[in-house]
Amino acid sequence: MAGGSGVRMGGPLPKQFLDLGGRSVLHVTIEKFAAAEPDIKVVTVLPEAHVPLWKEYCLRKNVVVPQTVVKGGISRFHSVRNGLAKVPDGALVAIHDGVRPLLSEDMINRMFSMAEDVPSLIPVIPSTDTIRALTRTVRPDGSVAFDPVPGPAPDRSVLFRVQTPQIFHSELIKKAYRQAYDLSFTDDASVAERDGMELAFTEGESLNIKITTPADLALARAVISMKNTVE
Amino acid sequence: MAGGSGVRMGGPLPKQFLDLGGRSVLHVTIEKFAAAEPDIKVVTVLPEAHVPLWKEYCLRKNVVVPQTVVKGGISRFHSVRNGLAKVPDGALVAIHDGVRPLLSEDMINRMFSMAEDVPSLIPVIPSTDTIRALTRTVRPDGSVAFDPVPGPAPDRSVLFRVQTPQIFHSELIKKAYRQAYDLSFTDDASVAERDGMELAFTEGESLNIKITTPADLALARAVISMKNTVE
Repeated sequence: MAGGSGVRMGGPLPKQFLDLGGRSVLHVTIEKFAAAEPDIKVVTVLPEAHVPLWKEYCLRKNVVVPQTVVKGGISRFHSVRNGLAKVPDGALVAIHDGVRPLLSEDMINRMFSMAEDVPSLIPVIPSTDTIRALTRTVRPDGSVAFDPVPGPAPDRSVLFRVQTPQIFHSELIKKAYRQAYDLSFTDDASVAERDGMELAFTEGESLNIKITTPADLALARAVISMKNTVE
Repeated sequence: MAGGSGVRMGGPLPKQFLDLGGRSVLHVTIEKFAAAEPDIKVVTVLPEAHVPLWKEYCLRKNVVVPQTVVKGGISRFHSVRNGLAKVPDGALVAIHDGVRPLLSEDMINRMFSMAEDVPSLIPVIPSTDTIRALTRTVRPDGSVAFDPVPGPAPDRSVLFRVQTPQIFHSELIKKAYRQAYDLSFTDDASVAERDGMELAFTEGESLNIKITTPADLALARAVISMKNTVE
């Protein structure tokens, strides 16, 4: 899934096309899956406007991973649904954020292995920070106001941060995505759960960050450059 | 606050003493505050067993920031209380995790400036990930089970991750720390709130991570080495 327009990055290029050690973020992500699972087939879902840019990139950089490029929809839900149309029944399908390039090959291998035995597999990591329920409002003068949400404080010991890849048996997730769209769908697990699918969870990785801000990108570049130095 | 024993890092050295580009994590953190606020007075709270190690380090590395070293207590709450005993009334006190070395000088300056006008100031960042309420159990065979917590799913749009420094008017937070200890105190803001103090919130920084795992340390080293290259 590389549907994001990258408005939060503040630059002209969508974030999945930004450079990470000589390759685009999306390229690094795809190569990570291909290295972990050499027989993988990739469906890349992109906003229609970015498809020519990506095809040109793949030619120029000689990206050889078998890949079907699909146009995104008006929301992440519709984009995933478009992508799933290219996935056969009887497969395991890992739905992954294109802007999470830093997960390990070991995590990919471990998750595909575990996912054989459950309808769905969702990676989570503990929320190590204290969490507060607040509403954030930008005032007319540009300053920011935070106001507490009434009710009991969230108990951080039970709060886990959900990552991707989220892996599903393909015929089950395709069925779930036949539901009507609902604004409360924040990820594929929430779509699957609404359709009655049982969710199984496994350990994610703290380095498996989603690159959404310039600070995240700086951090990812630092991690990649350090790995290149070590290897 | 450098009270942690660092058991999650898996090594013999507590995490605040691990190397970050030639200086210990705690040293980098203290120097960041001293660079931002040259008149600052630092109270360093350490487990009693680590005090000689830290004093030897400060001599060897010529750490010249004015600093009072205090022994920690049996919990973070008791350690903070010990530290506050060295803080005069009429001051602004920033209570900060020694293992958060990556915040910017600008964030420190901005927060001290804003804190003049409110009883307390707490930095938060949005929780960009989807959040699930789960209980995590390690089974006798060492495998991990995650089970959903009954009830409505957390709404991520109102969930914010709390960081440090948390800044208080010193006489108010010293009064709050005269309360009896409660296990539900997860940070200084929760202690202040229980005592009836009004909490104000401000924007934190996504790079202001708490170093608690080897992956966090790898990430912090990468960020520091990149900064050293650029400067």
